[in-house]
Amino acid sequence: MSSHEISLRQFKVRDPFWENEMELVRKEVIPYQWDMLNDRVEGAEKSYCMRNFATAGKMMAKKKVQGAAYAEPKYTFRGFQALPEDPDHPEDDKFYGFVFQDSDFSKWIEAVAYSLTNHPDPELEKLADGAIDVVCSAQLENGYLDTYYIIGGMDKAFTNLRDHHELYCFGHLVEGAVAYYQATGKDKLLNAAKRFADLLCEKFGPAEGQCKGYPGHEIAEMALVRLYEVTGEEKYLNLSRFFIDERGQKPNYFAEIEEHDNFTNTAYHQAHLPVREQKEATGHAVRAVYLYSGMADIARITGDQALVDACKALWFNVTKQQMYITGGIGSTPNGEAFTFAYDLPNDINYSETCASIGLMFWARRMLELEADADYADVMEQALYNTVLAGMALDGKSFFYVNPLEVYPEACHRDERKHHVRPVRPKWFGCACCPPNLARLISSLPSYAYTETEDTLFVHLYLGGDLETTKNGKKAAFAVDSSYPASGAVTFRYTGEEANFTLALRIPGTSETSKDRLYYALGSEGREDGSYAITLPEGINQKMEKGYLYLSGTFAPGMEIALDLPIRTAFYQADKRVRSDIGKLALMRGPVVYTLEEVDNGKDLHLLRVDPSAPLKESTFTIGGKDYPALIAQGFREDTPCQLTYIPYYTWANRGENEMMVWIRK
Amino acid sequence: MSSHEISLRQFKVRDPFWENEMELVRKEVIPYQWDMLNDRVEGAEKSYCMRNFATAGKMMAKKKVQGAAYAEPKYTFRGFQALPEDPDHPEDDKFYGFVFQDSDFSKWIEAVAYSLTNHPDPELEKLADGAIDVVCSAQLENGYLDTYYIIGGMDKAFTNLRDHHELYCFGHLVEGAVAYYQATGKDKLLNAAKRFADLLCEKFGPAEGQCKGYPGHEIAEMALVRLYEVTGEEKYLNLSRFFIDERGQKPNYFAEIEEHDNFTNTAYHQAHLPVREQKEATGHAVRAVYLYSGMADIARITGDQALVDACKALWFNVTKQQMYITGGIGSTPNGEAFTFAYDLPNDINYSETCASIGLMFWARRMLELEADADYADVMEQALYNTVLAGMALDGKSFFYVNPLEVYPEACHRDERKHHVRPVRPKWFGCACCPPNLARLISSLPSYAYTETEDTLFVHLYLGGDLETTKNGKKAAFAVDSSYPASGAVTFRYTGEEANFTLALRIPGTSETSKDRLYYALGSEGREDGSYAITLPEGINQKMEKGYLYLSGTFAPGMEIALDLPIRTAFYQADKRVRSDIGKLALMRGPVVYTLEEVDNGKDLHLLRVDPSAPLKESTFTIGGKDYPALIAQGFREDTPCQLTYIPYYTWANRGENEMMVWIRK
Repeated sequence: MSSHEISLRQFKVRDPFWENEMELVRKEVIPYQWDMLNDRVEGAEKSYCMRNFATAGKMMAKKKVQGAAYAEPKYTFRGFQALPEDPDHPEDDKFYGFVFQDSDFSKWIEAVAYSLTNHPDPELEKLADGAIDVVCSAQLENGYLDTYYIIGGMDKAFTNLRDHHELYCFGHLVEGAVAYYQATGKDKLLNAAKRFADLLCEKFGPAEGQCKGYPGHEIAEMALVRLYEVTGEEKYLNLSRFFIDERGQKPNYFAEIEEHDNFTNTAYHQAHLPVREQKEATGHAVRAVYLYSGMADIARITGDQALVDACKALWFNVTKQQMYITGGIGSTPNGEAFTFAYDLPNDINYSETCASIGLMFWARRMLELEADADYADVMEQALYNTVLAGMALDGKSFFYVNPLEVYPEACHRDERKHHVRPVRPKWFGCACCPPNLARLISSLPSYAYTETEDTLFVHLYLGGDLETTKNGKKAAFAVDSSYPASGAVTFRYTGEEANFTLALRIPGTSETSKDRLYYALGSEGREDGSYAITLPEGINQKMEKGYLYLSGTFAPGMEIALDLPIRTAFYQADKRVRSDIGKLALMRGPVVYTLEEVDNGKDLHLLRVDPSAPLKESTFTIGGKDYPALIAQGFREDTPCQLTYIPYYTWANRGENEMMVWIRK
Repeated sequence: MSSHEISLRQFKVRDPFWENEMELVRKEVIPYQWDMLNDRVEGAEKSYCMRNFATAGKMMAKKKVQGAAYAEPKYTFRGFQALPEDPDHPEDDKFYGFVFQDSDFSKWIEAVAYSLTNHPDPELEKLADGAIDVVCSAQLENGYLDTYYIIGGMDKAFTNLRDHHELYCFGHLVEGAVAYYQATGKDKLLNAAKRFADLLCEKFGPAEGQCKGYPGHEIAEMALVRLYEVTGEEKYLNLSRFFIDERGQKPNYFAEIEEHDNFTNTAYHQAHLPVREQKEATGHAVRAVYLYSGMADIARITGDQALVDACKALWFNVTKQQMYITGGIGSTPNGEAFTFAYDLPNDINYSETCASIGLMFWARRMLELEADADYADVMEQALYNTVLAGMALDGKSFFYVNPLEVYPEACHRDERKHHVRPVRPKWFGCACCPPNLARLISSLPSYAYTETEDTLFVHLYLGGDLETTKNGKKAAFAVDSSYPASGAVTFRYTGEEANFTLALRIPGTSETSKDRLYYALGSEGREDGSYAITLPEGINQKMEKGYLYLSGTFAPGMEIALDLPIRTAFYQADKRVRSDIGKLALMRGPVVYTLEEVDNGKDLHLLRVDPSAPLKESTFTIGGKDYPALIAQGFREDTPCQLTYIPYYTWANRGENEMMVWIRK
């Protein structure tokens, strides 16, 4: 019984914490990103994204006029990032920026789409429509739409799937196009994406003469499923399945078929083995979880057991052996990649924001495949820690790398740690994390709730008003939540009388979680999954895989009161995690807490924590807003002292300073 | 009052520990190295070293015959390491190998020279004479002698001092030539080196028209001083001083005068500041300590106070802020370099064997500048730990990198740790450490003893028979020592009756050591410098800067019995060393002990040590030989257990396994 995410239109967020985050995205991130796409940010590296679409559009117009006389450009490789020789005078007919620069538009339009759903804004919609016109003007007659080759020379299109991100740009285009269609009902961009997809369906496939390649950077796999689900066109599903089935087969496409003048590390691309034989996450962490997301989609739709098994084995490896307590993944900056089980260094890791966002994509898809609370627990862990920490509290700067321990001098002076920034930079030329955060946060309700014909699943306790259809009746709830500040969540039924099931996640109770990497002191592998529920008469309850299924006839005015105790506890890591041995981390519910120098003085490594002493709740202020803090007892060397812990997602908002999650006990 | 090292001819080693090491060098390292130089080692990367000299020699012969008709080769850059296109058929007239490949011969001949002094061997001497003939046949008429440019094209000689190691090869040539002259009295190679030096004295210097460059990889500075001391020619001293004075001046030679198509990191070459303004060691650690050695030489000879001060400031920075307890230096493999004060990670460091050898070079020169036991303490710490660990106990394999903690899986699977080898490799194509070890070990007496006109200094307690001249009389001692196994050392006088001073180092008592990075538990910065001495009548004693000066008239048969308690103690690091916080290391005298998996089981990170429990002395066996071990008490997680410690220099002689010096307390 697979579920599916709710549409954003079905949910109106009413949750102070998340409304604030979404407003930051709407007011700060989306406008700033638009300026970036148009090279209007002083001092920032130029994107050239919209310029490239316009350049290609002009070429297409010229081609239409000139017909057969039109001279097609011939491709020359100008680097992974092509910049004008004279920065003030880029040439008229050249592509500039990274090979994947087109995707910046697609990420932006996707975030815009979600934002418009949550918060209609005619001016923004007009701006988006105009941008879409520019993008569509660049499309070739055969449907091809990647300005890197349209401008640079179509003679080399599809010849470097490994590095040139053509299919990655395609995937993002589809994601953006579907989102914009769902938000506005406008199908111009969707049609453009479909035409590109149609071309790919001809180009790639198992038949003789078709190309046997697949994306070097995955995303098209899950995007094609989304396109299939919105259009009903089976060929899109088949192309996604082809990409997944073909990946890592012999002869290896990247290593043995496509020509490269440098070494191919197939594991970096998750192409070292057929995907059904992969049991250990390897290579670039974002690519990996994007692939696994696509695999979970196909597994859900086809029921392919080998694929289900591979997804579960990989899930085990990633979340029980290679994940930080913050939900970060990718232990090394070399290839922004996974390393091996239990290798989780705290101060030189990568743990890209996008990788944790991708982990949420994958978790949601695993939940759709099978309602097991372990997936949602991990999704929540990633969300409240690494994902949230990715954006400053004012929405104006961003982390790509999310360390668990920072000593600023080392970041400045040790080349091995140059990737670890002690403060969030504004934006990078290679802009993946900020727009990815924008699209994730704006579409959060679709991660919080999924549903089947007769069951509504609640994975994240996001407050708001939900309306859907169950067994033909309008079913609706007003959800009041201040989770995770408190664990009291009430569901007031506001729909028609209807018979169905409401399934509520009880964190930490799934059997799948039993091999957890991190556990509260004193607990032996299994967490305290206590909860209290107040049910109206006539509603039956049943626990399964960490979900409390509440079934019966829901009538207007009925109220269900769930109380999830928010436990504050010190956690220790599995003893195989060498970097955390002898150390403790503090969590309150799903939120990891950390120490900063600004509260605790210099040289955090001299501190030890006494986990047996009582904790005190407190608050601290940033930008006039209060945030929770926890006061613990400990020692600086041998002198007793207080330790002031703050949520990990609030770190680095008060200037450059030391930070440390894992503290010696 | 500066002292100078004794000549190797003055000392006959009689010390089971060191005789064994020297025999390994003589029987294993030197013959193997000769085979390497001649490309006769199966499976090893080819050196091409002797081949290049022969190639250049043939070219010179041809030039002699052809005269003006001879066509000079034109230079083309073929990479930092040039390899033949067809490995089985290198071309006749090409240079192959690294740009610094010539230096392999020079290092070999230097080790041969010392070995011949300790252990005459007519066959080895004949082989060496033959090799010298080949090398000298390559020299140009103007004295130039670097086959890289002789074969490749003299039109580009001296155009890339930064990277092409011309002056480095020159420095090694001088070191080898002087040593061979001192060992055998034969001056053919010395004369060749002098002719090359004469050419450089014309080429480089402060006068108008002379080149203002200096070595990209230092060594010529100290080599030129050695050449000056053996020849008495002041111009060699002046050239050394010029190289030192010019380094880091504006305009910067590497960054602003010499043309390069890539970025110059002047700090990597210690050329970011004039040397007298350098207070912090930067860049490539081997280059750095070679430079500082040359600076100490010049400071000693010229008495230049600014240079003395710079040497002392750098000594403080290196040994009190950037040195491992094993005497290793260079915290990062990126540039094989220093990072910054107190940054001493144990599992990803570089700590090259050659850097610790260079630290000994420098320490000996600081001792010559000023008799302060701190220099000898550090020299001893480097020698008994990192330097000795550089060679396997059978003399057949070598570490370049010397970590303090090894988890083999990480070395294999984490790219950041690929430089850390869990077992010693046989030899590298870039062969610096094995021949450097060979020359250091074979010349050890010159580190153990230095002298002035009236004082004989004992820095290392190396057993043997020493003969010198003091105040015109033959002065001699038979030194019985099994240091550091025991601290009892006796000096039996075997010379003529003579009035002079014997100065004995009392470890850990110099005032300069007070800011030590590592100190025994319970001690507060100052170590226990206790000792006992039994003196004959008429000999007076005085302590100064960690040396016990024994003055008076020495008569045949007199015996001085020194007892240096060999303390076994747990050490902690300065609290600013983040990587060692909460951890202890075990030392017995100057020898660092470590844990290996083979004795203590897997997962060494789970162990904790109880420093209050008594230690037990023990032994263990490798290759039929006994080595000391220490048994401590501790815990594996919470279960009491024994910890078996072995000397750091014996690790990795029993197969690949985990190793850890710093253990949680």
